[in-house]
Amino acid sequence: MTDFAATKSMFHLPEGMIYLDGNSLGPLPISANDRVSNMLRDEWGDMLITGWNKAGWMAKPMGLGDRIGKLIGAEPGHVTTGDTLSIKVYQAVAAALALRPERKVVLSDNGNFPTDLYMVTGLLKSMGSDYELRVVDPEAVQDALTDEVAVMMLTEVDYRTGRKHDMRALTQAAHACGAITVWDLAHSAGAFPVDLAGCEADFAVGCTYKYLNGGPGAPAFIYVAPRHAEAAQPALSGWLGHEAPFAFDLDYRPGQGVERMRVGTPPIIQMTALEAAMDVWDTVDLNDLRAKSIELCEAFISGVEARCPDLVLASPRDPQQRGSQVSFHFQEGYAAMQALISRGVIGDFRAPDIMRFGFTPLYIDEADVAAAVEILAEIMENRLWDRPEFKVRAAVT
Amino acid sequence: MTDFAATKSMFHLPEGMIYLDGNSLGPLPISANDRVSNMLRDEWGDMLITGWNKAGWMAKPMGLGDRIGKLIGAEPGHVTTGDTLSIKVYQAVAAALALRPERKVVLSDNGNFPTDLYMVTGLLKSMGSDYELRVVDPEAVQDALTDEVAVMMLTEVDYRTGRKHDMRALTQAAHACGAITVWDLAHSAGAFPVDLAGCEADFAVGCTYKYLNGGPGAPAFIYVAPRHAEAAQPALSGWLGHEAPFAFDLDYRPGQGVERMRVGTPPIIQMTALEAAMDVWDTVDLNDLRAKSIELCEAFISGVEARCPDLVLASPRDPQQRGSQVSFHFQEGYAAMQALISRGVIGDFRAPDIMRFGFTPLYIDEADVAAAVEILAEIMENRLWDRPEFKVRAAVT
Repeated sequence: MTDFAATKSMFHLPEGMIYLDGNSLGPLPISANDRVSNMLRDEWGDMLITGWNKAGWMAKPMGLGDRIGKLIGAEPGHVTTGDTLSIKVYQAVAAALALRPERKVVLSDNGNFPTDLYMVTGLLKSMGSDYELRVVDPEAVQDALTDEVAVMMLTEVDYRTGRKHDMRALTQAAHACGAITVWDLAHSAGAFPVDLAGCEADFAVGCTYKYLNGGPGAPAFIYVAPRHAEAAQPALSGWLGHEAPFAFDLDYRPGQGVERMRVGTPPIIQMTALEAAMDVWDTVDLNDLRAKSIELCEAFISGVEARCPDLVLASPRDPQQRGSQVSFHFQEGYAAMQALISRGVIGDFRAPDIMRFGFTPLYIDEADVAAAVEILAEIMENRLWDRPEFKVRAAVT
Repeated sequence: MTDFAATKSMFHLPEGMIYLDGNSLGPLPISANDRVSNMLRDEWGDMLITGWNKAGWMAKPMGLGDRIGKLIGAEPGHVTTGDTLSIKVYQAVAAALALRPERKVVLSDNGNFPTDLYMVTGLLKSMGSDYELRVVDPEAVQDALTDEVAVMMLTEVDYRTGRKHDMRALTQAAHACGAITVWDLAHSAGAFPVDLAGCEADFAVGCTYKYLNGGPGAPAFIYVAPRHAEAAQPALSGWLGHEAPFAFDLDYRPGQGVERMRVGTPPIIQMTALEAAMDVWDTVDLNDLRAKSIELCEAFISGVEARCPDLVLASPRDPQQRGSQVSFHFQEGYAAMQALISRGVIGDFRAPDIMRFGFTPLYIDEADVAAAVEILAEIMENRLWDRPEFKVRAAVT
């Protein structure tokens, strides 16, 4: 049984704050400061260039990939880390398209995170006018799988509502019509068990700064199924994805398997912070995590629905169809969220009217949920959101 | 007059080491540890998601861009940071090609760093079979500028020999034949004064972990000349390059100017370390730096040539035609470099036979050069390189 009181003690959580925004940026693992500080002093400081060998910097992208891989059901050696999620989306979709050269359609849904759609738009534009990004409603994806579709690219959990696609069924349907799948696990990795190998997913990508708690701008990851590992061609063919980076050949030859999805010099300081975060995960059973996450979400929903009749559930009611977040519609959601934040309950807002709350059992417990419901109820009952100071929009929300 | 004794005191240099590899990875600025530690505790730890606004994280890519821009002669507001140099090369060449749609050739030279060539190979492959990467000898670039050339992509300083292209003359020649220029400043930024605006360069890219001392995996930068800023189309069209990232529109609209070259979430921890490194640069006059760099290189060359007749200068003899490194050919260069490293003099080796030494006035002085010459001479005079332990090849060199 996972000891969630113990995991909670491994994070720095500001006094008086209830942090329900771990689906945007996870909190600081307490060990990260020492880890990074030691790395700066003992590795960069004292080893300098030799750190690439001596301190194992060069092996970090694959080492971290394997640690993440355990949380998403990937085969060992088939996940690597680096760059940003946007870049990894581009790599995955480009490689997937090259496996279906006779097809020209990338299918996605309008609940996908916009950058995924933007990156594919850019990719297809450079590939020529016969390619198409086809975007449908989340519920319409399965019916839109035709033999025109080269790649089905979906974010498993909708960042607005927490609605969760059925990865197994959709992957099977995509394969049945001959399409390759690219799954974005931004709101899945560390939120619940993912079974990439069992679902026969082809490519997957994700970030590490949300549920995995790797810190602001932590590196992304990419998975390539073993059966595609030697066929997948990297569009972003950088030197660290080369078969022999330090031979400095003029011609590119892709490295082994997913290693070819490495591009440039990895961000070692960020990776060191991420390693501290991954240490916490070593103590966690994802089935326990999922059970606890559902408990917390259910408690929040029933509390809010009982106390705040103006808030309308935007997330699926069935916990199996949700990720690890709960969203509510409220027309004055922006102001209500600002009011909440001013009272120490941190969630976030997504236009036009969605109040989002992430539930992360590693550091959020039943008492936090009860307190958050109480504060939200006070704000709603007393219309505290209706103050001018809560209606001023910040640049970044 | 720049106080180089003062700048030297701002870096952590291991006792007994003479570090002549700042052209690969610069040393740790002493202030970096506190800066990063404070950022982890006070910003990530205490501000969490609000750090994007409150701690100015979202503004870091452009803020750092302007600080770097001062060192490379860029107009304010036209440099941004993020990703890796490989990614930035891809972005710059893709945008440059789109400005010359009727031309199909990217011209480069075989002294370019391989990843630049690899990234362009990948880009052109995705664009179709009528595109060509044409690679000539460094000395042959000017004559290869024909009206077929869409983009001339060069690394200003050859990573092997330190040979420096004439940016002004080649940019002028490229423009005369209608080509767009992409300059890689990996071995230029922080090595000597660069005058992008004065040379009328179109695009430039570079890394910050060499002469700029930003740390292992520090972010890259990209410059887009003001006259192209609104015409340049981003191939890697990520959400942070969108006109309004937090509107979460489904359609991509490029942001203002070089901001559109931002892609995903910026690596804030790495950027914090880079800020510490940039503080040192605030105290430096680049003309002083160049004068001192030439003095150090000249002293090293004359010392080595006087004491080590087996070493043959691989760098140009004219200091105006060199960057801030000196290279020598020696058939047993790998072993000789290992012997040097074992004695505390850190340079590096590039196949087939090049011993490289970087000279970085911020923390290397005349006494270091004299001591390095003395140790190298001892190794050569006593054939100390001819020991089996120095011939074992490491994975990363």
